[in-house]
Parts: sequence; structure tokens; C-alpha cells
Amino acid sequence: MKFLCQKNKLQEAISISQKAVTGKSTLPVLEGLFISAKDDTITIIGSDIDLSIESKLEANVFENGNVVVDSKLLGEIIRRLPNDEVEIETLENNILQISCQKSNFTLVHLNAADYPTIPHIDEDIVVSIEQSIMKNMIKSTIFSVAQDETRPILTGILFEISDNKLNMVALDGYRLAVRSESFDTDKKITAVIPSKTLNEISKILEDSDEKLDITFTQNHILFNLKNTKVISRLLEGEFIKYTSIIPEEYNLKIKANRVDMLNCIERASLMAKEGNTNLIKLNIQEDNLLITSNSQLGKVKEELSIILQGQPLQIAFNSKYLIDVLKTMEEEEISMEFTSAVSPCIIKNVNIDNCIYLVLPVRLLNN
Amino acid sequence: MKFLCQKNKLQEAISISQKAVTGKSTLPVLEGLFISAKDDTITIIGSDIDLSIESKLEANVFENGNVVVDSKLLGEIIRRLPNDEVEIETLENNILQISCQKSNFTLVHLNAADYPTIPHIDEDIVVSIEQSIMKNMIKSTIFSVAQDETRPILTGILFEISDNKLNMVALDGYRLAVRSESFDTDKKITAVIPSKTLNEISKILEDSDEKLDITFTQNHILFNLKNTKVISRLLEGEFIKYTSIIPEEYNLKIKANRVDMLNCIERASLMAKEGNTNLIKLNIQEDNLLITSNSQLGKVKEELSIILQGQPLQIAFNSKYLIDVLKTMEEEEISMEFTSAVSPCIIKNVNIDNCIYLVLPVRLLNN
Repeated sequence: MKFLCQKNKLQEAISISQKAVTGKSTLPVLEGLFISAKDDTITIIGSDIDLSIESKLEANVFENGNVVVDSKLLGEIIRRLPNDEVEIETLENNILQISCQKSNFTLVHLNAADYPTIPHIDEDIVVSIEQSIMKNMIKSTIFSVAQDETRPILTGILFEISDNKLNMVALDGYRLAVRSESFDTDKKITAVIPSKTLNEISKILEDSDEKLDITFTQNHILFNLKNTKVISRLLEGEFIKYTSIIPEEYNLKIKANRVDMLNCIERASLMAKEGNTNLIKLNIQEDNLLITSNSQLGKVKEELSIILQGQPLQIAFNSKYLIDVLKTMEEEEISMEFTSAVSPCIIKNVNIDNCIYLVLPVRLLNN
Repeated sequence: MKFLCQKNKLQEAISISQKAVTGKSTLPVLEGLFISAKDDTITIIGSDIDLSIESKLEANVFENGNVVVDSKLLGEIIRRLPNDEVEIETLENNILQISCQKSNFTLVHLNAADYPTIPHIDEDIVVSIEQSIMKNMIKSTIFSVAQDETRPILTGILFEISDNKLNMVALDGYRLAVRSESFDTDKKITAVIPSKTLNEISKILEDSDEKLDITFTQNHILFNLKNTKVISRLLEGEFIKYTSIIPEEYNLKIKANRVDMLNCIERASLMAKEGNTNLIKLNIQEDNLLITSNSQLGKVKEELSIILQGQPLQIAFNSKYLIDVLKTMEEEEISMEFTSAVSPCIIKNVNIDNCIYLVLPVRLLNN
């Protein structure tokens, strides 16, 4: 293998493919990047088996070939080279030589034949979506994904395409996040994607209206960007029927300014941190929301103007769950719907109907 | 105690005084900030006994008084309040009330009488220096301070004022940093200041030509800025006679571009990280410096244009020590003076004579 390429392009491709290298694999070859030179194109693959990222760049390829090189060391070397042409060449005895201006590195490379095969994806069910929308939909739901592995399916996000709509859904037993976008397709798809995959994808996606192609197979998903392909296994099993969890009716509804409410709850939670209970009480009154919290540290009382439809209510929450939702939402005005002090609370935008958040209250001893 | 002040001013004063609160003290009261309201001035003190920081702000004081409040909690509360007037008031039963707009906090405060007395400094030996110069002098030397406590005096920086000059000196047994500035004074002072104190001071100092007053006593140093006083104990004992360590003569001298050399050494050290030896070899030739490093990871060779006076030499270093020096220096051209492969190397600016760095080489088996 021998090729010449621009340092900047190489660095970019390496840093994208590196995102799939976790260093936690039992297979030593997966601590490396697979580098293939062929037909004036360099392909760089990083993988932890579940998730693989492939990026491509142009190069002058003098001799085709494949090698595997330690991901971290290669990344550090390329990053620190001068911004100029880099020559990479395999020598005898499994040596890889990297040269740029007056810098010369020689490292031992691994055998490319030992690198696992990346699943081949037949491009049969393809949908397209703007990068910025996908990025936003991931951000709007990923915080609600289950952190523990008790029910593995809940560590992923449900992709549900039907009726010209894409819904993304995450839930962890205490809260639920649904984010929807209209979507011009006659396809019907249900798949659960590991949150780790979506976390890495959202780092690669740009805030642009350029399209991202997504291909689904029985067991895998492929995200196809211009020079980058991300392939991930899907989670097996059936997702919870989330629609049945979301109450359709409510007894009272409040409207409030989102940022004001976020600030009040964040301040109130300063006193609620002790013992990690994060317990805050909401006293919903006519025109007014009182937020209080008590602990050994002291007491706090916050007051917020609201518009109330229905009867006053007292209800308690883990403040973290409300803060997560209010931080993620983007509209100025939000609504919260309640049925009783022991029923879930539903949070939505007042104007734009593209998300539904559900948070379970904390049952107090005197409820 | 009762006063009214601007949230922003209060937040700034708290965040400055907090720098002295380490949370590592055995005295629980030192986890708090001492707050004193008197004559329309609020004084806030944080301390870990060795180092105390006092900051002042204007306020409408309705009732004089002193309290001690948990530093972290108070800082968090004030930081999250709306940017408006804050009212702080002591109530019965050791309760402190903090109110701002519709936010109301009540916390238990500690007894101000339990707070240790901050040393009183007679302002007898005062010198003045520009903030930006002091900040730069600290940055130029502090990285060479000894990290272990084997010789406590070496965990500080020597301040040496004499002959219209301020020298600041740090050394750790492997390297030495001397930074000097001319200084219009007839005073003669020698003091060793703990590096922790100077680290905190440099965070408070601004890149401005405003003056900083420094007062020395037998056991303490006082840094006096506009609204802030930093008081620190001095280290006891005598500093090493550093001038006798610096060789006056040399056999060869090279001149090189500082940033180019830094980049070469940083790249070479990528291969030297294994086993934390950081060993790199310098092969000083006519017009050319070869920097090499070998390890199980691989080999690297870097080449750099230099101007050589004297005979070629091969010498080895811990790359970290050279990188620390080259990163800190600011001039474009540097000089390095050598006597032999086992004698110290002296690094200076070519044009501006305000610093001397000494680094010991690593003795190789074949030397």
C-alpha cells in the first residue's frame, strides 16, 4: 500500500471513524482503524462490532492495499503533522511509514485480514431526512433512554415511520419523550436503534439542510452521509406500546414561560440535592405556581406566573426529570397537563405540536 | 445583618473569595465564606488558613453583622438568581434569608465568631507591579515547581528583589526556571511563596497594566488589588542558591525557531510515551537538528533547521521538560547552550534577555 493525501482530509476522516472505536472490545484488532487504499480512494473503518463507521477521502494511490493501525496513535500522529501532503506506505516486516515534510514515523501495523467484516447492507428500504432535523430529533429524545440494562430494548430509541410521519420515542420507566416530524414517504418501518449509535451519529451530523439517507434491514441500520457511512445493529425485541401510556384527558392544564420555569426549578433543586432525592413540590394555584423544596440545607420558595385551566393541585417531582425536558424544548411557551397528584404530567409546546413529554410524579406520604 | 446589593457584584466577589476555600480543611467553618456587612460595604472572606482571599463590594447595609455560610451552596444560589437586587438578612435561629424578585431561600448559617482571624499585615514593605507582568512571571516559572513535598521549600517560587530587579525562580531537581523584570525599587527582599497561592493569584490577575501592590512581612505576603486582598503564609527555610547551578560557559550553542522545535519535539514524544520515559534523542549537527525516539510502538525521526556554533553533540532528554519550556516561552527565536551530553542545557530567548531555563539531560547507557 502506498498513497499521498492531504493531512487535513486524512485527519477529518480518522476522527470520524475513531468515534466507533471504544477500546473496550476483547478483540485487539478493533483498537485499530482499518485503512484500505484503492482506485484513488482511501477508506477508513472504525468498529466495535455493534457500530461501525466508514469514512472515505481522495488520495493519489500508487499501490493498493489494506492495513490496520492503532487508532489512538495514528490519530495523534496525523493531528500533529504539519498541514501538508502526507505519504503513507507499507514497508517490509509489517511496518507502516508515515512521512510529511521532514517528519518520518515508522510503526508496526496489524494484519488487515484479521479485521472483522462489516455487515453488507442491501439498500432496499431507504428514507431521506435533513441532517439538522435528525440531529434535533436525537437531542430531543436521547436523554429519556434507560440507563440500566434491565430491559435492553429501552436503551434504544424507537424509530417509527408511518402515515407520512417519523416518530422517535425514548422511555425509561419514569419518563417518556416523543418527537415527531412529518415525512413524505409511503413506507412503514419500526426499528429500535441503540442510543450509543445515535449519540455518535449526532456528533457527525451538521446543522445543515443536506440530506441523510437511512437504510433499514432486518437487523441493521445504515446512515449514509456524503463521505461517511454509519452501520449499526438494531436492538432485538418489541418496544413498549407507548401510545397507551400517554393519557388522552386531563383535569387541569397550565401555560407558562419555559425559560422562567426552568430557572425556578433549577434554583429550587439546589436545596433538593441532598441525598439525591431531587424532590420539589409544585403548588399550582390560580395565576401562580409555587415551587418549594426543603432539606437539611434549608428551604426555598419560587413563584411563577401561569395561566391555569381547571382546579388547583399539589404535586411533587424529581426535579431532574423536569429540568431535562425544559432544557431540551425550544419554544417560548409550554403547557403542562395534570390529572391528579399521582398521575403522569404531560408537557408540550403551546404552539408547535412536534413533541410530547411525560414525567411521572413522586408520590408523597400524605397524598 | 441586613443588606441589599447587586447580584452580579455579589457573584463576582463570592467567586473570587471561593478560590481560597479548598474543602480539605479539618475545620468545618472553613468550608464556609465569612460575610461581614458594615458601613455600606460587604466583605467576603474565604480561607484555608495558609491562604485567605478577601473581596469587597458596595451595598446598602441596613444592619451591620457577620455570618459564615456554606461556600458552595451560597455560590450556586447567587449564581442562579436573576440579575437584579439581592436582599440578604439574618433571621432568628441562625437562619439566613436570601431574596431576589420572587425567589426566596432560607439557610442555616454558621457562627461568625468561630471563623479564624485573618493575619493582620502591617503595610511596611510595599512594592508595586503591573498585573499583566506578574501574571506572566507566574506562568513563566510555576510549571518548574517541585510537585512532591520531599523538600517543601521547592514547592514555592522564590521572589528575589534587589538591584532594581525582580527575579522569580522555581526548580524541582530536574529543571530550573528564572524569569526577571527590571523593577524601580531600592528595596531588597527575599521570600518564597507557595505555588498554590500564586496559582490562585494568577487566576484573579487581569492582563492589564493596572498596578498590584505587594506587601511582605516576616511570615506573610499580601497581594492588594482594587477590591481584593490575598494573604498567604510564606514558606519557611532557605531557597537553593540557584545562581551556582547555572553554568556560565558552554561548548556549543544552537539557535532555532521556537514553535518549529516545539512541534518536532511534541511529535517525537508521541513515540516516547510508552512506559512514561518520554525519552527523545537530539542529534545536533551542522545546520540540522535530528530528533529521534524509539519504542515498542515504532520509530520517529524529525529534522529541524538550526544555526550551530561549536561542535556536534548527541544528547537525550525527557521530552516533557523541553515541551514545558518551549510552550511557556513567547519569543520566535530561542537559543540552547550545551557543554556535554551529561551537563545541563540552558534555554534562552535570542533577543529578549528576561528568562533562563535549565533542563538536565537523561544519561544514556552508552554515554
